[in-house]
Amino acid sequence: MIILGIDPGLATVGYGVIKVSGTNFQTLAYGTVSTKAGLPLEERLLQIHTGICELINRFSPDEMAIEELFFNTNITTGITVAEARGVILLAARQNNLPYGEYTPLQVKQSVVGYGRAEKKQVITMVTMMLGLEKPPKPDDAADALALAVCHAHCSQSKIKDYFNQKI
Amino acid sequence: MIILGIDPGLATVGYGVIKVSGTNFQTLAYGTVSTKAGLPLEERLLQIHTGICELINRFSPDEMAIEELFFNTNITTGITVAEARGVILLAARQNNLPYGEYTPLQVKQSVVGYGRAEKKQVITMVTMMLGLEKPPKPDDAADALALAVCHAHCSQSKIKDYFNQKI
Repeated sequence: MIILGIDPGLATVGYGVIKVSGTNFQTLAYGTVSTKAGLPLEERLLQIHTGICELINRFSPDEMAIEELFFNTNITTGITVAEARGVILLAARQNNLPYGEYTPLQVKQSVVGYGRAEKKQVITMVTMMLGLEKPPKPDDAADALALAVCHAHCSQSKIKDYFNQKI
Repeated sequence: MIILGIDPGLATVGYGVIKVSGTNFQTLAYGTVSTKAGLPLEERLLQIHTGICELINRFSPDEMAIEELFFNTNITTGITVAEARGVILLAARQNNLPYGEYTPLQVKQSVVGYGRAEKKQVITMVTMMLGLEKPPKPDDAADALALAVCHAHCSQSKIKDYFNQKI
């Protein structure tokens, strides 16, 4: 099973693609879809939508894992992250890609075994579990890989399967 | 000039289409793109994106007016509204439709002449200005028409014209 992990954002969308065979994880790719700050919002949303569609076409993932949003701190930034997340979910739906949503706490719990783990610990564990030579950079890509690993660990209960739903 | 006004939301996106010729306003259509609460989020986003694209194809608007989001009250609802707004802005960009953003205060100021006007006053003014026989229903459609009128009134300074920008 191929999983596309996505850490949503407007300036930087982190992505990580892993192949899961039983308990074996293989990293296919990771990186970011980045948009420049000076561009109009709708242009940045288009670039994100196009970038995610390209990733889906390139790696043909079976499922996607994406971070669930909570806004406790910077609401204004949160609005644009949610707008970006909207076009990412649209890209998934347009490509019939089911997805699971996870909070940072769930990801830490799944990857490190401790919900209040530090970011550094998460990156160290992801690097080990995926057999990478060095910690994945930037952090957005590492977060996306952690989301993909979390998705592989978690039960399938949260995965939305279009084919089993009446829509 | 044909203006498409959009009041964003996840359950209900209000729309209003007006034709502006000098100081004359003509209402071409108004209504809502609605999505059912029980559907998966990504399916609702797809329906909104499809619905907005259909409106753009049907009325060939020259410009769009959409409400700017501020989250002071219900943050959780705000996230999904922003996700919906993301796919609406994507639809505009994919159809090369420039748009302006307006706060509720700007709309009230423009339509009623008073930023703290009540919703009822806005609807009454919109009904009069557009020469409608009765107040437009539901409120989301009335709000969208008010946004379109506000856009027609406002200077073009906030309109994003792709063709004049380096992107």
